Amino acid sequence: MRLKAGGVRELHWHKAAEWAYMLKGRARLTAIDQDGRTFQDDVGEGDLWYFPAGIPHSIQGIEGDGCEFLLVFDDGNFSEEETFLLSDWMAHTPKEVLAKNFGVPASAFDRIPEKDLWIFQAPVPGPLAADRIAGAGPVPLTYSHHMMAQEPIRMKGGTVRITDSSLFKVSKTIAAALVEVEPGGMRELHWHPNVDEWQYYISGEARMTVFASENNARTFDFQAGDVGAVPFPMGHYIENIGTTTLRFLELFRSDYFADISLAQWLAFTPYELVRAHLNIDKSVLAKVSANKTPVVIP
Amino acid sequence: MRLKAGGVRELHWHKAAEWAYMLKGRARLTAIDQDGRTFQDDVGEGDLWYFPAGIPHSIQGIEGDGCEFLLVFDDGNFSEEETFLLSDWMAHTPKEVLAKNFGVPASAFDRIPEKDLWIFQAPVPGPLAADRIAGAGPVPLTYSHHMMAQEPIRMKGGTVRITDSSLFKVSKTIAAALVEVEPGGMRELHWHPNVDEWQYYISGEARMTVFASENNARTFDFQAGDVGAVPFPMGHYIENIGTTTLRFLELFRSDYFADISLAQWLAFTPYELVRAHLNIDKSVLAKVSANKTPVVIP
Amino acid sequence: MRLKAGGVRELHWHKAAEWAYMLKGRARLTAIDQDGRTFQDDVGEGDLWYFPAGIPHSIQGIEGDGCEFLLVFDDGNFSEEETFLLSDWMAHTPKEVLAKNFGVPASAFDRIPEKDLWIFQAPVPGPLAADRIAGAGPVPLTYSHHMMAQEPIRMKGGTVRITDSSLFKVSKTIAAALVEVEPGGMRELHWHPNVDEWQYYISGEARMTVFASENNARTFDFQAGDVGAVPFPMGHYIENIGTTTLRFLELFRSDYFADISLAQWLAFTPYELVRAHLNIDKSVLAKVSANKTPVVIP
Repeated sequence: MRLKAGGVRELHWHKAAEWAYMLKGRARLTAIDQDGRTFQDDVGEGDLWYFPAGIPHSIQGIEGDGCEFLLVFDDGNFSEEETFLLSDWMAHTPKEVLAKNFGVPASAFDRIPEKDLWIFQAPVPGPLAADRIAGAGPVPLTYSHHMMAQEPIRMKGGTVRITDSSLFKVSKTIAAALVEVEPGGMRELHWHPNVDEWQYYISGEARMTVFASENNARTFDFQAGDVGAVPFPMGHYIENIGTTTLRFLELFRSDYFADISLAQWLAFTPYELVRAHLNIDKSVLAKVSANKTPVVIP
Repeated sequence: MRLKAGGVRELHWHKAAEWAYMLKGRARLTAIDQDGRTFQDDVGEGDLWYFPAGIPHSIQGIEGDGCEFLLVFDDGNFSEEETFLLSDWMAHTPKEVLAKNFGVPASAFDRIPEKDLWIFQAPVPGPLAADRIAGAGPVPLTYSHHMMAQEPIRMKGGTVRITDSSLFKVSKTIAAALVEVEPGGMRELHWHPNVDEWQYYISGEARMTVFASENNARTFDFQAGDVGAVPFPMGHYIENIGTTTLRFLELFRSDYFADISLAQWLAFTPYELVRAHLNIDKSVLAKVSANKTPVVIP
Repeated sequence: MRLKAGGVRELHWHKAAEWAYMLKGRARLTAIDQDGRTFQDDVGEGDLWYFPAGIPHSIQGIEGDGCEFLLVFDDGNFSEEETFLLSDWMAHTPKEVLAKNFGVPASAFDRIPEKDLWIFQAPVPGPLAADRIAGAGPVPLTYSHHMMAQEPIRMKGGTVRITDSSLFKVSKTIAAALVEVEPGGMRELHWHPNVDEWQYYISGEARMTVFASENNARTFDFQAGDVGAVPFPMGHYIENIGTTTLRFLELFRSDYFADISLAQWLAFTPYELVRAHLNIDKSVLAKVSANKTPVVIP
């Protein structure tokens, strides 16, 4: 989704939880929870947010050239068409009922929109501090997280930032990893022992082979803006086949991130048993570290 | 379900958990759990009970004109026809097996019923104290709760009693609210961010409009004995359109109750953003309280 | 599954969790988890293991005449054909990718198998101590359990060993009971208030009647190697109708074991209520103990 400076994705809620990654630009977020506790924050490139199912929220582009963000929902049946829009609800409620609800005359609602707004242009809001509203206090678990600002696992060949509910506590249904792979490097052979993986390629060029068992495997190439999927619990690797840093998101419908490394598996299994399977020399496993290295490079 | 004084809904168990609200009269309940711990209690108007799935129990009308209660199960596929009845089981078990099970002669079972009883008349039981059986001790979480005796949220216009597993601990799969709205009052515009709502109207006359998103809304009238439903997470309000107190139950297949108030949402969102959506004056939001007021009245 | 001494069920993983009971002989197990923590153990008759979904593992027959074990998966759709085999994955990965993954020349993999091994013969491994690999430390919850070595509930007529996640902590999705019934004895009339039951008959001869409600019941005979099933939450009993000890496993897709005893139910319910249902004398319930006796014998 893209919003110009001042552009508003109107106040709304929906059935699914919403996870998002800011690709570029900046936006202001607002929300409240079931106890009237409030959230307002500004997010920029590399930040993310998570709104639990049913929690009402808004997104507005702020200063600069607008913003672009990736929206991820925790239900494959989610439809952006079926979101609950404030203006749509107001337009379908008798004005006498609105009057009773707020304890004001019905005429107070004479100028509400006749149909839904969905996305509309509004003035660029002022500083965040001016938009702070106490309500019944702040939400107990913040809805935003500075993912790119997180200290990554750093390796020769790349970095990995893992953000799941152990770190971003409100994100109970979506776990993520932001992976950077240098040219010639590779996200190592691995699989995830919990759930399917959904991927978004932010920049660079990638090649992935997915092993589906029963003599099936298939190789795919990806570039910026592409989406990939790895069904549970298929083995895979992702090579950087371009000349710039490859950057992509791994996403999981889970409260935790987990992967199992082929290299660790073989190195941490009795060698005679591995040899009986693969006829490989013990020296093949010599470089495998007790600390996992999700990215490798020759 | 209605039972005369002495009338027994026979000893039975079933797949679904059972939640009930006593509408009038009094009944005696019995149950045991998987560790042989026992429960016996008498319940009256405004009391409720909850039997977890698979837990055997009985209900018997006691002194007075009998009783009437609302039964709510935590599975929409539940059928009262498919309950497991003690008498049905005994009639389908060889008497030699019963003899072996209890260590008595087979003739001890010569007079058991040949077919199931389901509901049958028996003598009115004596005082509860005489029916107390220690077994392996009392159940650790009681199966009954005095909902109407609970101190409500009191507002101008009505009251709300919320009973979920934070208060009635055994009720892990059903949460409830008992709402009373004075004539002219209204259960405010709100939605539930967790699950569908199922309603039972106990007394009075009500009107509800449900907002289903995508330009859809529909209005319904209700009276005592009616059932309503609000699919997750649709916005709605319920007006008292009669001349007496409106009393109804909101029920949820959840371990917790939660609702989000339109009034709080708008009041706790930066006003300039609300104005950009709705063209309403700031004074419209002036009366909204940091403490939620689920019922409003002009 | 049967493995000769040295026979290997190759290194693999799958979608479902795997629970197993060793029927005879001995095997060596290996596994690692998502954090590179390792597990190696030898198991013998009456031992069991549990590998969570997605966790890679191997099973190898060790000294003696080989081994035979019962495999139980926590998903009825599980297929042994769809397991993820190490050799199959390696054969479907370009050798240059393997080389990059391990930091060695591609020629290191010249002799890996061209197709999957599934089960294959290898040398009998040496002592367990020699196969211990530290990796990133031991798995926090062990994957094996000595079920038969567990102190049972002992009664006149038999024994019961219950193994669920309260005792075998890693086994979050499968709970089990190992029941021994002497000739003439009976697993008492009971039901399970949580889930379906799946049974495996290890030795002896049994008769079970299952009560399905709605005037339905059916009786089945079983012998060693047979499988039984009791849908949730049907009442049942299992008689030893042979001349030797009956030994069988009760298995549940649950983190806990629970059953409700008909005898306790009747004995711990007010007698006048029971009498009104069944016309039985109070003396019929006199022998029922506050401690459950899952097995009875005249």
